[in-house]
Amino acid sequence: MERPDTPPPAPEWSVSQWFNTETPLTLAGLRGRVVMIEAFQMLCPGCVSHGLPLAQAAHQLFPPDQVAVIGLHTVFEHHAAMTPVSLEAFLHEYRIAFPVGVDEAGKGAMPVTMERYRMRGTPSLILIDRMGRLRAHHFGQVSELRLGAEIATLMGEGEIAAGDSP
Amino acid sequence: MERPDTPPPAPEWSVSQWFNTETPLTLAGLRGRVVMIEAFQMLCPGCVSHGLPLAQAAHQLFPPDQVAVIGLHTVFEHHAAMTPVSLEAFLHEYRIAFPVGVDEAGKGAMPVTMERYRMRGTPSLILIDRMGRLRAHHFGQVSELRLGAEIATLMGEGEIAAGDSP
Amino acid sequence: MERPDTPPPAPEWSVSQWFNTETPLTLAGLRGRVVMIEAFQMLCPGCVSHGLPLAQAAHQLFPPDQVAVIGLHTVFEHHAAMTPVSLEAFLHEYRIAFPVGVDEAGKGAMPVTMERYRMRGTPSLILIDRMGRLRAHHFGQVSELRLGAEIATLMGEGEIAAGDSP
Amino acid sequence: MERPDTPPPAPEWSVSQWFNTETPLTLAGLRGRVVMIEAFQMLCPGCVSHGLPLAQAAHQLFPPDQVAVIGLHTVFEHHAAMTPVSLEAFLHEYRIAFPVGVDEAGKGAMPVTMERYRMRGTPSLILIDRMGRLRAHHFGQVSELRLGAEIATLMGEGEIAAGDSP
Repeated sequence: MERPDTPPPAPEWSVSQWFNTETPLTLAGLRGRVVMIEAFQMLCPGCVSHGLPLAQAAHQLFPPDQVAVIGLHTVFEHHAAMTPVSLEAFLHEYRIAFPVGVDEAGKGAMPVTMERYRMRGTPSLILIDRMGRLRAHHFGQVSELRLGAEIATLMGEGEIAAGDSP
Repeated sequence: MERPDTPPPAPEWSVSQWFNTETPLTLAGLRGRVVMIEAFQMLCPGCVSHGLPLAQAAHQLFPPDQVAVIGLHTVFEHHAAMTPVSLEAFLHEYRIAFPVGVDEAGKGAMPVTMERYRMRGTPSLILIDRMGRLRAHHFGQVSELRLGAEIATLMGEGEIAAGDSP
Repeated sequence: MERPDTPPPAPEWSVSQWFNTETPLTLAGLRGRVVMIEAFQMLCPGCVSHGLPLAQAAHQLFPPDQVAVIGLHTVFEHHAAMTPVSLEAFLHEYRIAFPVGVDEAGKGAMPVTMERYRMRGTPSLILIDRMGRLRAHHFGQVSELRLGAEIATLMGEGEIAAGDSP
Repeated sequence: MERPDTPPPAPEWSVSQWFNTETPLTLAGLRGRVVMIEAFQMLCPGCVSHGLPLAQAAHQLFPPDQVAVIGLHTVFEHHAAMTPVSLEAFLHEYRIAFPVGVDEAGKGAMPVTMERYRMRGTPSLILIDRMGRLRAHHFGQVSELRLGAEIATLMGEGEIAAGDSP
């Protein structure tokens, strides 16, 4: 989690359907909290064995008013195999309790938010600070120890970060 | 794997679609080999983490002319979520190499073969001897050591087993 | 890691022999860094499977000028079985790279530092902040995500913590 | 476990001290049973994480009048660190329940039985058939499925094996 001098604003997501939340969520609406996006596909083995268990652990450990864990179903292959109907059963069977949004279909195979964040595949893990700025972007397996440290570091920053003029 | 005095004949399966085999398979056609049926659902966590890896290990270890490992997709819940289209992508992503049949839809939620074998759920693991007789039926997690022993015991029996009059 | 209003000062350790460091270390001499003490016994299964791998991961992840990971061999049972001669071979075989001190023998079975910290057994994990104050004390298995968060939180605090009058 | 035309007789072990058995055991005295020797060192990480758990599983699974699981402490390095005093505490802490013999010290670093069997290191796993013949010799990690199959194959052979003239 290298911190550039000026971390770029994290782009808003574009979601066509939500699970595990009564009202649609926006990144803008979560300002003030650290946001962890777990981008996954339900048929991606690395997502099932590593990415999603990590997101569940983070969702259980950190207080929800401080850290929002958001799943993003970024289907870029086998589209007919991973429809929202299948996703819903998947979330039920794997006891996923945090909000999960379906990334909006794009013009090509790649969905809209995945394209916007230039993700390389799944699982991808994005951390956004309380100011709505993109602070970490991991592809593949992430060390649990490192993730814990990265989230806590962002939690420790106020909404007005050190480098900003108030 | 207790051996009853007269092990019952294993019922034939009823499969509506096959993957990973060019021609449909029948249990009768596998007479002479030991048959291991791994009954699973693609969205069942225990199947993904235990049952299917065990079946893959057995498929790799034992010679195919001695032991036939057969996957059976026994969907008894979330039917719309686990269609053959989704199953095909699942088998591809998880690199399942052995033949997999889709258990034929039944009148109720339970598919035909699952009903015939009175399976309690997924994963279920069935062992059938070279004579086509049902010799083991496990539900849930199976010890790898025990499975290895059970398969080898059946391999060691000839086609004409001890108790039979030739 | 609940923070009491006034965290108590962490007691100094008492070590009879060091491994993996050329000069003896004192807690006082590490002031300014976060200190993680992994108290273990070389023949304690939970230490071998969980505690020590966690300490190794922390030692690899965090910069040594910020976080000092210290092993403490707190033998309170089977004393004749876990002498420094055996410990040295153990550290070599398990590739333990961080400094490890042998907790000084006490009057009873319990060694001196273990007694001072009132540890309940092994593995025990202690976190001390940059000011030398005791901030966390875990017994048994610790979540990697939580440990990462706790260490990063202490790293984020300056040497003069918020509640102190400078 | 390739079967040579004439499997060689397994050499007798030479043990200086036994644990977990009231009377010393000899290989000759176990004739009629399948024997699994798990050769290990208490400070060998692969023995602790793989070899010994496998031996414990085999000891629990197979009937003792059919299969004898024997641990052999074959210390060939760090001799002063792995004395019988340390081994005894190790066996207690790791809940090893099967008989364990200390391989007799040799003229060089290598103990006598280890030399006799030409073991390459630890863990080594040896299988001996009911006739006392050497049938498998593995070094390093062994697949649980394969071990189960190998033991069951030997169990299935009578005391008078096929190729022998009665």
